[in-house]
Order: sequence, then C-alpha cells, then structure tokens
Amino acid sequence: MKVVVNVSLKEGVLDPQGKAVHHALGSLGFDEVNGVRIGKRIVLDVDGEDKEKIKERVKTMCEELLANTVIEDYFIEVE
Amino acid sequence: MKVVVNVSLKEGVLDPQGKAVHHALGSLGFDEVNGVRIGKRIVLDVDGEDKEKIKERVKTMCEELLANTVIEDYFIEVE
Repeated sequence: MKVVVNVSLKEGVLDPQGKAVHHALGSLGFDEVNGVRIGKRIVLDVDGEDKEKIKERVKTMCEELLANTVIEDYFIEVE
Repeated sequence: MKVVVNVSLKEGVLDPQGKAVHHALGSLGFDEVNGVRIGKRIVLDVDGEDKEKIKERVKTMCEELLANTVIEDYFIEVE
C-alpha cells in the first residue's frame, strides 16, 4: 500500500531553504509570492491490508526516524 | 492562497536518500516497508483569487525554478 508522509518545519522554525527560494522567485518576477516553506514528502510502499494498523506503524516510523518532532510536524496519508 | 507543489524524482531515477531511509527502517524492524522515495513538498503563500491563473503561474515557477524537469516530476495543489 502507498503511504505518504509529509514532514514540514513547525511554525516559527526558520526555513533558510524556503527563504532562498522565495528570494529567487522574487528575482524571477514572481512578486505575488508572500512566503515559501519547504518540507519533505516521503512515499513509502508498505505491506499490509489494514489501513489503521499501517497508519499506526508509520506513525511509529515518524516518531523514531522520519521526523524530528522537536522542530518538525508531520501528517500521514494512506492511499 | 496556499499552494502546495509536490516534487518527486521520476521513476527510474536513483534515490540514494530514500534507499538510506529504507535501510534504516529495516534496521529498526520495520520489515513491511518495500520501498522509500523522498521528494519535496513546497508550500507557497500566493496572492490572488483566480485559482486557474495561480496554478498557471505556479506551473511556470516549477518549470523555471522549483523542479528539475529532466529528472523530477511535480504536481500542484491549490487549496
């Protein structure tokens, strides 16, 4: 089953990569952009049938490895 | 308006970061994971009302800066 984990920096945590992209977009004339935040989109191919069980397991993966919960938020989509 | 750009490596393009995470998950006992691909999730705050127009502009941003279309695919979600 395909599972998508979206990891993003928490509100208030500085995002220099996003800031650099925002600046570059401005230089290219995209003045309508007010802000850019860059996160990760992790796509997992996971064995199993029970969506709830899979989600629970992936949550554990996030807590143990995929996200740094001190500075990052995440949400999980099971497809 | 919030616009999300999801950028991922094309099928067939090697993803060493994803491979490393897959390996690490295996080491932690998550044997049900068959594959991991890691992409970017870029969240833009864009001025404007017309969703179609915004999407068209963000598509141009992707082609010019946000994605490397030789090795990456992207899709845009306007929220």
